[in-house]
Amino acid sequence: MQEILSYIDKNKDRYESELKEFLSIPSISTAPENVADVRRCAAWVRDELKRIGMKQAQIFETAGHPVVYAEHMEAGGNAQTVLFYGHYDVQPVDPLHLWDAPPFEPTVRGENIYARGSADDKGQVFLNLKALEAHLKLNGTLPVNVKVMIEGEEEIGSPNLETFLEEHREFLKCDTVLVSDTPMYGYDTPSLCYGLRGLCYIELEVTGPNRDLHSGSYGGVVVNPINALAHMISKLKDEQGNILIDGFYDKILPEDKRERAELSKLPFDETSYKKDLNVNALVGEAGYSNVERLSMRPTLDVNGIWGGFMGDGAKTVLPSVAHAKISMRLVPDQTPQEIAKLFTKFIEKITPPGVRVKITELHGGPPAVTPIDSAGVRAASRALKQVFGKEPLLTREGGSIPIVEQFKRILHAPTVLMGFTLPDQNAHSPNEKLNLPHFHKGIKTSAIFFAEMAKE
Amino acid sequence: MQEILSYIDKNKDRYESELKEFLSIPSISTAPENVADVRRCAAWVRDELKRIGMKQAQIFETAGHPVVYAEHMEAGGNAQTVLFYGHYDVQPVDPLHLWDAPPFEPTVRGENIYARGSADDKGQVFLNLKALEAHLKLNGTLPVNVKVMIEGEEEIGSPNLETFLEEHREFLKCDTVLVSDTPMYGYDTPSLCYGLRGLCYIELEVTGPNRDLHSGSYGGVVVNPINALAHMISKLKDEQGNILIDGFYDKILPEDKRERAELSKLPFDETSYKKDLNVNALVGEAGYSNVERLSMRPTLDVNGIWGGFMGDGAKTVLPSVAHAKISMRLVPDQTPQEIAKLFTKFIEKITPPGVRVKITELHGGPPAVTPIDSAGVRAASRALKQVFGKEPLLTREGGSIPIVEQFKRILHAPTVLMGFTLPDQNAHSPNEKLNLPHFHKGIKTSAIFFAEMAKE
Repeated sequence: MQEILSYIDKNKDRYESELKEFLSIPSISTAPENVADVRRCAAWVRDELKRIGMKQAQIFETAGHPVVYAEHMEAGGNAQTVLFYGHYDVQPVDPLHLWDAPPFEPTVRGENIYARGSADDKGQVFLNLKALEAHLKLNGTLPVNVKVMIEGEEEIGSPNLETFLEEHREFLKCDTVLVSDTPMYGYDTPSLCYGLRGLCYIELEVTGPNRDLHSGSYGGVVVNPINALAHMISKLKDEQGNILIDGFYDKILPEDKRERAELSKLPFDETSYKKDLNVNALVGEAGYSNVERLSMRPTLDVNGIWGGFMGDGAKTVLPSVAHAKISMRLVPDQTPQEIAKLFTKFIEKITPPGVRVKITELHGGPPAVTPIDSAGVRAASRALKQVFGKEPLLTREGGSIPIVEQFKRILHAPTVLMGFTLPDQNAHSPNEKLNLPHFHKGIKTSAIFFAEMAKE
Repeated sequence: MQEILSYIDKNKDRYESELKEFLSIPSISTAPENVADVRRCAAWVRDELKRIGMKQAQIFETAGHPVVYAEHMEAGGNAQTVLFYGHYDVQPVDPLHLWDAPPFEPTVRGENIYARGSADDKGQVFLNLKALEAHLKLNGTLPVNVKVMIEGEEEIGSPNLETFLEEHREFLKCDTVLVSDTPMYGYDTPSLCYGLRGLCYIELEVTGPNRDLHSGSYGGVVVNPINALAHMISKLKDEQGNILIDGFYDKILPEDKRERAELSKLPFDETSYKKDLNVNALVGEAGYSNVERLSMRPTLDVNGIWGGFMGDGAKTVLPSVAHAKISMRLVPDQTPQEIAKLFTKFIEKITPPGVRVKITELHGGPPAVTPIDSAGVRAASRALKQVFGKEPLLTREGGSIPIVEQFKRILHAPTVLMGFTLPDQNAHSPNEKLNLPHFHKGIKTSAIFFAEMAKE
């Protein structure tokens, strides 16, 4: 292993210049004008997989952007099989004027490389490929069987990946999925994410009178749909953060004391957190810490609201319709389907006389939690400890990565979320960056991870 | 008088084609892009006043849109002086897609002419000008002294009119003010409005975190400004229609039994009212009839709300800011100044931790009630009876015409509110319309009104 780590140290500069090439391709999956760039990026990844010595490197067409696949299956039938998943597509770059340097001209400043995709997810895809390369260059083979699947639609919600997994279910068979698409907990705080919240996202339309009315002439007897919507929203969650929808908490698994103990190890500096956001208070569900409220507890947020007159000045309208987009983050064993039903039933119960409601389910995904004692989590923990010198903290993420649930459901494989970026990486924002010392440590950690997987 | 009425009948078609010209000018006072149109409309009114034979027709500049003035003062020093007030500006037209025909291309369908401003207030301004024209064309003079003042900022709250009245206090001196900017009670129910609600219109901005956040990563501890705004709105008025702002009702005058008896004569068909608006219930303040809730009692309505993601689909944002426009209708002796203070104090009291609020007073006007036994009310009652064949009902309007209070306070003149549109006129809404038979009856009524004023 020492030989591999030395090799990685020696090739530091080459890794950076190759990464710049990868980052310079504007593979924005949502932008029609970048379709050719996305395809060019897929070809670049395929060629890179060939260069590092992976086999069967090829592009699979989908109904949208292609999936790149390669494998190296020479570790034998008894060895573990790891499927490494990542994505080569990136978020749009607007607002462009807030970038200090062009987003597709990777620039190194201080410890960081700045470019769209540097953190999310090209940099993290690339460091795993460099780990595989180190094994292959020095040993001609890998410690375990490895499949690599890099998609091009993660930033638009992976609309074709579930079908791809189902169609290639046998072919993608594996024991563990490795994903590097989450940040570490802090600069000197290696962490492994083992849980993700699910999502139930709903649009609510409240209709009062059949047309916009003059608020002077009708106000006083006609129920205003905005006022009604505000009353309804105020009944969904109280001001302390407790969700009031009947049955909402019923399916949540009993609390795991060991898990709460693990989460309590995570540092959370409330003062600097509030300062960063410029808020005078944090408010959440009673009986839980901030870390728990952000990860192992469900939430409800209004993501958007609109109705009536939104222009400058004063228009005295009593509007016909008001809208809200409302989403709930879910934890095991809540399901988006069941939560949508409870939400609908509750809304029907609290809809006041004088208005009608229409509920549209926009999208959802179940929560996913990987067992702490799975092979992948154990191997990744050992690898992180060797490189960062500390036992990694076990974290749960507040957001959703729907494919983690799909890997579990379709491939029956648990997912290890081993990420190397930092919380201030500006993913999805201007000046996205990747910390280069962490990038190099990530290559080493990944190389050790594959070796440790051979011991499982 | 018969000669004048015949003349009005004969000129029916001409009136309609001239009105169309007036209605085709998009004089939207709140829209910066229509400033030139508003000015063009003022010039049109000035030229029309010249055409019909009024004297001194001219445009007065203000800090905003101009006021058009003309007069005809040949009835002598002992005759009554009537100041006719109206406005040539109109409301915005959005949502444009709900209009059956372009709002500034007046279209006749059935008994109605459809256009923005047809009812509020160009059509009603125009019918009074046609009444003056009939007198002037046939008699070369008017039965009383008449001043005409048509402003261009009524729909944005007449911000410069009070100054104008104060500066020209002597010059605008009169015995009675005539305003035609209210609807009649029903198609066959002539009415005279003697009371108007006041208005206090406020914009509320609620700020949570200093930037839009990912609702998955931050949801659970960061207070969502939309949820907070909904909670605050739900505390302003309960679902029964009672306003909960501390001290809100304190300054309301004790109820007048005679007035409640008058109002109880007004027909109100709840079934057809609900059917017209397609609502399953009317809801309002306990202890008051629907007519009272619509006129002699105050209200609170959210006129607009916006924040977060309002596009198609699902964006999981925990937004930084949410906004609402909230207005309150006032009755004597509430004042907009005092109500704005109470509102601000109450909002400060109910602002939850984790968000900050900013309150902007957009516009306001005090309520106003005119004595039932004034000369103008008597003359108008006789005129309405002659044309519509019935004694007019005495009503109070739910809307606000702040200048009525200013006429009383600055010019010491009572205002007669003699309106000819119908309750389904869609003022401030798409497909605003004016009933043409009422428009013609209105011209006759106005002509008789000026003659009857000579008898007072």
